[in-house]
Amino acid sequence: MNTNEMLERRARLLGVGAPLFYDEPVHIVRGEGVWLYDADGKKYLDVYNNVPNVGHSHPHVVEALCKQSKLLNVHTRYLHDFILDYVERLTSLHDDSLTTTFITCSGTEANELALRMARFITGGQGIICSNATYHGNSEAVDELGTIFSEGKSKVKRVKAIPYPESYRPISDAEGEALADAYANEVKKAIDEFKEEGIGFAGILLCPIFANEGLPNVPAGYMQKAIQHVRDAGGLYIADEVQAGFARTGSHMWGYQVSGVAPDIATMGKPMGNGHPLAGLVVGVDLANAFRKEVMYFNTFGGNPVQCAVGMAVLDVIENEKLLDNSFTVGEYVREGLRRLQNKHDLIGDVRGHGLFNGAELVKDRTSKEGASKEAAHIVNEMKERGVLLGKIGVHDNILKMRPPLPFSKVNADQLLSTLDDVMAGV
Amino acid sequence: MNTNEMLERRARLLGVGAPLFYDEPVHIVRGEGVWLYDADGKKYLDVYNNVPNVGHSHPHVVEALCKQSKLLNVHTRYLHDFILDYVERLTSLHDDSLTTTFITCSGTEANELALRMARFITGGQGIICSNATYHGNSEAVDELGTIFSEGKSKVKRVKAIPYPESYRPISDAEGEALADAYANEVKKAIDEFKEEGIGFAGILLCPIFANEGLPNVPAGYMQKAIQHVRDAGGLYIADEVQAGFARTGSHMWGYQVSGVAPDIATMGKPMGNGHPLAGLVVGVDLANAFRKEVMYFNTFGGNPVQCAVGMAVLDVIENEKLLDNSFTVGEYVREGLRRLQNKHDLIGDVRGHGLFNGAELVKDRTSKEGASKEAAHIVNEMKERGVLLGKIGVHDNILKMRPPLPFSKVNADQLLSTLDDVMAGV
Repeated sequence: MNTNEMLERRARLLGVGAPLFYDEPVHIVRGEGVWLYDADGKKYLDVYNNVPNVGHSHPHVVEALCKQSKLLNVHTRYLHDFILDYVERLTSLHDDSLTTTFITCSGTEANELALRMARFITGGQGIICSNATYHGNSEAVDELGTIFSEGKSKVKRVKAIPYPESYRPISDAEGEALADAYANEVKKAIDEFKEEGIGFAGILLCPIFANEGLPNVPAGYMQKAIQHVRDAGGLYIADEVQAGFARTGSHMWGYQVSGVAPDIATMGKPMGNGHPLAGLVVGVDLANAFRKEVMYFNTFGGNPVQCAVGMAVLDVIENEKLLDNSFTVGEYVREGLRRLQNKHDLIGDVRGHGLFNGAELVKDRTSKEGASKEAAHIVNEMKERGVLLGKIGVHDNILKMRPPLPFSKVNADQLLSTLDDVMAGV
Repeated sequence: MNTNEMLERRARLLGVGAPLFYDEPVHIVRGEGVWLYDADGKKYLDVYNNVPNVGHSHPHVVEALCKQSKLLNVHTRYLHDFILDYVERLTSLHDDSLTTTFITCSGTEANELALRMARFITGGQGIICSNATYHGNSEAVDELGTIFSEGKSKVKRVKAIPYPESYRPISDAEGEALADAYANEVKKAIDEFKEEGIGFAGILLCPIFANEGLPNVPAGYMQKAIQHVRDAGGLYIADEVQAGFARTGSHMWGYQVSGVAPDIATMGKPMGNGHPLAGLVVGVDLANAFRKEVMYFNTFGGNPVQCAVGMAVLDVIENEKLLDNSFTVGEYVREGLRRLQNKHDLIGDVRGHGLFNGAELVKDRTSKEGASKEAAHIVNEMKERGVLLGKIGVHDNILKMRPPLPFSKVNADQLLSTLDDVMAGV
């Protein structure tokens, strides 16, 4: 079937406007490791997908999925070992304070539950989020989706604050003073909630500000911001949907990068390597307080197949030393991007953590005007040349590079040389 | 590991009060067809689980899952055939008006999306639901969870109305007059929304009122109720999470039982036989109107593995004639239950559709006082004797029998004779 026929079927069966990547969409039929293959047999280096975190169709994960599916798949209102063994291992990788787990099917469900918990436990409704973010597609979570509302809060119980960044800072301050300036925005939002008579529940942030474009955060920001939150009796929810599971290279979890353990950490995308598996970790006292009053049950959440898959993902991260690989190859990618920055004026800033990197494209390095058209051109042209990446940021001008973790230096060289060629033609 | 050790681990790892069935929980290790096996090798006839709709660990479904997992599992922002082929087949089984599909990971996500759609399209917030129901675990969907709030609405934008039933009717009226009386409750709620200045969005109902205990609905109720909804510009959302996929025996979908096609039908539990797969069908005009303004994307939703699994479930329903089996064996179960009703005064009412049946237990057939203690005893004792069933209803007194669809007459005989023995001992 050709692309036009598929697009016509999509419009009819999924509705006009069902999201698609690229000016000319790719028709993918097979995946293996860091590679995707289209219907014509063309091979693409996947520098975009973090969901297949340990590699597309990883045999160890597929084997665990198949083995458990043949044996048993049932809900958690019967006893089974799988969820206990998985949760024991998962929590052992988290901060000591995060001992207890709720398993869900998607990051949206995990963030829904975290918001319900924070609001239930504090008795407040007020939630702070960043002004360029997305945390999921349900009604309550979509209230935080400021990336679609030009940074504006949509409802009174949610306040969007400027995300911390050093490249386009909100003030002339530098270093710790800049961190203070940004943290003060948290304090301001808390004070506003108080004035408006809205009880404060907490803050929900991606600890590496992934949707905001991976900004370099002024040192000490998170400590100062969360201190304000805790002084006001609020909870800190860290959204690890993108930052977690060894993505940052230096640590298993994004919150460890900033050195502040959250009260609740939500997880999703890479947790099951594509299998719908997500959840949250929280301290046992908060978990018990919530469970005591609220009947929360998730039909598919915590079933033996999900848990077997989640366990296999952790096996691969450990066995293939993917945390180390993320760190080493991530550094290598950033070094390469900085070399390209020296060569191409278009690249205004290079940044990231482990194998999650961004290159911010600007028309002019002084004005820092976002080069969104150029970014779109480059993303499409890279695809034509067999390299899949994306873009992000409020100016839609940041190249987003977030490959499966078994990404090698050879893969990085292909990414960098192709990007060099494409940029030369811009 | 013994049960007490498992319970201690659960409390620590999942929180105290994570839902469990039975006074002494069952530790399940294997499932096959209509059978579950515990850690001691004891075999249980599964008369409870509708999620493994075509049977536990069905080889055709497992094979499809494994085959596709080895090949490709990726999101829908690339083109792939799997979602188009699956959705084409799924919509072909629905009413002609329901042409377009959104795939999600859980029934909760499907109902979240249906509510968002109905509110977006009508511009109103007001939703009507029944006063003894549950539709999912997110904040917006939980607002409809009246089964946990003694039938009371929790928020102004949701109104709970009495569910229609002939066994404990709200008035002395009978037949069509009773249907009018119940439908009038819908009209009343719509009028109240109007008086309160809350725009009306629609009604969300399980078309067979599963959580309400499968009441016998006065003939014509749904036609009358939905006419009121449509006259007021609202949408009818049918929750097929329990009623759909051949469960009722007479039809593929619950809404076909009452003969009123909804504007949106949501689906979940049995859709992937345990694999997290859910979604909704809607007319293409409503889908396009929503897509035009709202960016809805579901990371795992519609991935090739989900679609392969969903397709395999439809294959099995068709190949093994499970709709017919649900009809025939369902009739056989109800006939048997009626024989038990003649023998045991405890059974006040027998009802259901296909392989989803209820027996309402009462202390006295005149007063109809609910026999909840007896129901709890019977459910636990049936489990001891190797038959798993549940209970439901506002009086917690309705035995709930909802086995995987390959349930045979021999299985039914085991259910009925065990129930007869257990009841003789009450």
